[in-house]
Amino acid sequence: MKNNLKLHFLGGVEEVGKNCLAIEYGEEIIVVDMGLTFPNEEMPGIDVVIPDTTFLRNNKDKIKGVFITHGHEDHIGGLPFFLRDVRVPVYGTRLTLMLLENKLVERRIKANLKLVRPGSIIRLGSFSVEFIHVNHSIEGAVAMAITTPEGVLFHTGDFKIDYTPVGGEMTDLKRIAEIGKKGVLLLMAESTNIETPGYTMSEKTVGQSLDLIFRDNMKKRLIVATFASNIHRLQQIVELAEKYKRKVAFSGRSMINVAAAAMKIGVLNVKESTLVEIDGIRNIPDRELVIVSTGSQGEPMSALRRMGEGDFNKVRVGNNDTIILSATPIPGNEKMVYRVINNLYKLGADVIYSRLRDIHVSGHACQEELKIIHSLVKPKFFIPVHGEYRHLKKHKDLAMTLGMDARNILIPENGDSIEVGKAIKKVGRIQSGAILVDGLGFDEADGLLVKDRKQLAEDGILILVATINGLSGELIGDVELIPRGVSFAGQPEKLLIETRNSVTQLLRTADLKSYAARMETKNQIKRQVRNQLQRKIKQSPMIIPIIMEIVD
Amino acid sequence: MKNNLKLHFLGGVEEVGKNCLAIEYGEEIIVVDMGLTFPNEEMPGIDVVIPDTTFLRNNKDKIKGVFITHGHEDHIGGLPFFLRDVRVPVYGTRLTLMLLENKLVERRIKANLKLVRPGSIIRLGSFSVEFIHVNHSIEGAVAMAITTPEGVLFHTGDFKIDYTPVGGEMTDLKRIAEIGKKGVLLLMAESTNIETPGYTMSEKTVGQSLDLIFRDNMKKRLIVATFASNIHRLQQIVELAEKYKRKVAFSGRSMINVAAAAMKIGVLNVKESTLVEIDGIRNIPDRELVIVSTGSQGEPMSALRRMGEGDFNKVRVGNNDTIILSATPIPGNEKMVYRVINNLYKLGADVIYSRLRDIHVSGHACQEELKIIHSLVKPKFFIPVHGEYRHLKKHKDLAMTLGMDARNILIPENGDSIEVGKAIKKVGRIQSGAILVDGLGFDEADGLLVKDRKQLAEDGILILVATINGLSGELIGDVELIPRGVSFAGQPEKLLIETRNSVTQLLRTADLKSYAARMETKNQIKRQVRNQLQRKIKQSPMIIPIIMEIVD
Repeated sequence: MKNNLKLHFLGGVEEVGKNCLAIEYGEEIIVVDMGLTFPNEEMPGIDVVIPDTTFLRNNKDKIKGVFITHGHEDHIGGLPFFLRDVRVPVYGTRLTLMLLENKLVERRIKANLKLVRPGSIIRLGSFSVEFIHVNHSIEGAVAMAITTPEGVLFHTGDFKIDYTPVGGEMTDLKRIAEIGKKGVLLLMAESTNIETPGYTMSEKTVGQSLDLIFRDNMKKRLIVATFASNIHRLQQIVELAEKYKRKVAFSGRSMINVAAAAMKIGVLNVKESTLVEIDGIRNIPDRELVIVSTGSQGEPMSALRRMGEGDFNKVRVGNNDTIILSATPIPGNEKMVYRVINNLYKLGADVIYSRLRDIHVSGHACQEELKIIHSLVKPKFFIPVHGEYRHLKKHKDLAMTLGMDARNILIPENGDSIEVGKAIKKVGRIQSGAILVDGLGFDEADGLLVKDRKQLAEDGILILVATINGLSGELIGDVELIPRGVSFAGQPEKLLIETRNSVTQLLRTADLKSYAARMETKNQIKRQVRNQLQRKIKQSPMIIPIIMEIVD
Repeated sequence: MKNNLKLHFLGGVEEVGKNCLAIEYGEEIIVVDMGLTFPNEEMPGIDVVIPDTTFLRNNKDKIKGVFITHGHEDHIGGLPFFLRDVRVPVYGTRLTLMLLENKLVERRIKANLKLVRPGSIIRLGSFSVEFIHVNHSIEGAVAMAITTPEGVLFHTGDFKIDYTPVGGEMTDLKRIAEIGKKGVLLLMAESTNIETPGYTMSEKTVGQSLDLIFRDNMKKRLIVATFASNIHRLQQIVELAEKYKRKVAFSGRSMINVAAAAMKIGVLNVKESTLVEIDGIRNIPDRELVIVSTGSQGEPMSALRRMGEGDFNKVRVGNNDTIILSATPIPGNEKMVYRVINNLYKLGADVIYSRLRDIHVSGHACQEELKIIHSLVKPKFFIPVHGEYRHLKKHKDLAMTLGMDARNILIPENGDSIEVGKAIKKVGRIQSGAILVDGLGFDEADGLLVKDRKQLAEDGILILVATINGLSGELIGDVELIPRGVSFAGQPEKLLIETRNSVTQLLRTADLKSYAARMETKNQIKRQVRNQLQRKIKQSPMIIPIIMEIVD
């Protein structure tokens, strides 16, 4: 029997094909990325969302390795959950592995991490995987050319084309052209910025904007908030600090950790005399200091947010501060970010953010950059990835304007198995979906839990406790009602008394002798109270009837 | 004793001075606007947020009237709650009163509504209020020039300057200039778009973009989602429908209601032969129909959202539909809107939204328009209103670039009382804030309720029930534990048994004879279980210990 080449799209919430992709040929599987996403407003109390990896766990003996395109959370964040159970080698570039290792050490997970340099090729069974340097908002990002018995798969990962990158080279278009020339079976390209015409600005332009701000704020203390993982941004800030004779203090746990890691492996270069500890800034004059901080998304507990709330001992914000948010709010975070900005203004600080100045650029390719990749790779088939359905749809349209046939393009959904060979087609579904992770971070919450919490959040809970004689089934004493988070239309006493009376009535006449009868009575109570509250206050609190049995 | 002129800023959540302003002179008060805001993510289960009007209720005999700038929810939505208790006349233009009346009729509230035409002046005691026509995203919007014994207050309301407005005249700059020339004591101007340079585009430009879409989609059914209250947008869509020989069906309760009201008073003009009922569209060919729908913000239960979910019987979306979202997502609604768009794409429809084409314009003035107003009014004092703190701060900066002295500008906070006369200064605070409204819409939820719900949503609830002999204080039977929405780190039984054991232990040795002793024991249980769960699962569910007393 002939082996087939199959792609399996695992996990993700709204975005497709972002967090994890499994490539299967015969008895072998390789995996590209294993990330997490952050919960949406439908998932109260949930910390992170990871892909459902049941398919991989069921096929763990086939897995040859996991290949990581870059070190962002949405590409590595699911690995600690997977690697504690499944021992497979993980391939990535230096910074990627360093960031992953930090996570694994924290959780005491041992793993087999294999360093790969961009430009080199890993051969594993029927596959060989070439790492190709690309520009992105993190150092060490790569695209992958995966050679299989059926042909070459080209996966862009997250990328942009920066002709004047900071501290590194531009996306390796030459090599991509060579690979394209030899023939590519399938292109998978990211779709994040497919709605934006033109090009993404160079990271260097951010440095130029920041330089102006440094020059215009000579007497003030500067606080710059940005993503810790954007090493090139950090490098530009450090260089400006050195140019304007300021010290640099990193603030916030992840900023301190990532900066340390990046300095250790030499991708972030800071003069020793430039660095100061955040605990040691008190004696440094404002004009001689830059604080580089986490919190550009207004995250709870982040350094910048706590500064705004006056709750960060190490940095007290006042009217000699100029604060720069060198990031744009990720959709969904706008309100949190603007609340932080309002707070900082109220403390007297000047705040500069991306609605006002060009102090951030995206890490993702816009339409013209995507056209370059499509034109160089010239694939037989195309699967748009990394985006919501609307993005993938538009990326398909773009490929068609470049001459591709609609039959050679397939928009995947999470959970799809797709076969590629003479044609491209969906051949099945695998178990997939989002696993909600809560609490300590190693606990997988189920759908019911989240459903419960949603109901609790919307309408609260009403607990009813009755005590009965376990033998006679007779009601003893009063029924107690305990509401929490229930809104009683301004008349709590009246409604509670009515409810108590009707439940008491029901219990007096009910059969409570057997377990089954008591369960049935509980359901009756639920229905009755639910109807009553629906009618009177148009709400559906969670109703918990408790019947305590006393046996004398 | 000399009377003073005071302004009191009531209500609002993040925005200042938007929902309600009270102006007091001696024994007289007039009120400008009384709106609502929509809840933020910190307020689960809350429907709307209205201003705390305690100050006005305590001074209700002083109130001469409420003046409404325009009919948007954030300017009229608080009135039904106020007018059911306080009988004062309400002054507004025709559409404004019509929209308000719809709300009052629904809730069976009688009110004294007084129609005012733009250009006319209402004299009430020491005040006289002139209504001045302005452009905005709703018909019948006005600015107000309020003459007081201390001088003239100019309040812009929400406005923009549209030189080519649809169905009406441009903002009455001539009259504003006259008023400015006679001398204005205080300008209050909105700040929504203060961060946007230049001018807001004319409503007419939207018509031009829509015309292209009509022309390019001759064979398809068109569905346009927009704000029901944007009558000028509706007018343009209707005129295009008539130009391209299509029928128009309004869809969604508020769209149908507002369109009917607007047609009745003649601000929306539709040929009788153009209109069809949404229930009667089955026999109309796709190419001859435009559906105008609610749901441009992805609101739950709105027509467009239900179309996307395949849950709207009247309109089944398919691949011969082109759907236009003629609106931009209000901050916080982005995810909902994009989810609707993804769903519509999956059903095969083509979707056009404002990231892709110019099919929406703001209703608010940008920087250059604000400069025009400042220059014409030339006030002695300035209070920026309608915005978050960051907006007001920047509006102050703009006024200063136009030559105003910082001492003559005051940034208010909700709850501030400000005196205006020879100088402008904060003179006190009044009771103010946000009242959260829940359920039937006439119930005022308190802060504790919302705090409870937040805790329930984040970490769930753990109920513990014990039964004791009310006389001896002795524990009878087992302690029962009922968790809901609690995430137990994968080991629910183990943790529940541990908790039960430790609580049983505690109850066996505790003094449970008196009420006070039982309360103290409940607190001990709470503390003990909270610590236990914090340590083991890093979570803080709400803990409800219940002690049932049985007296034999």
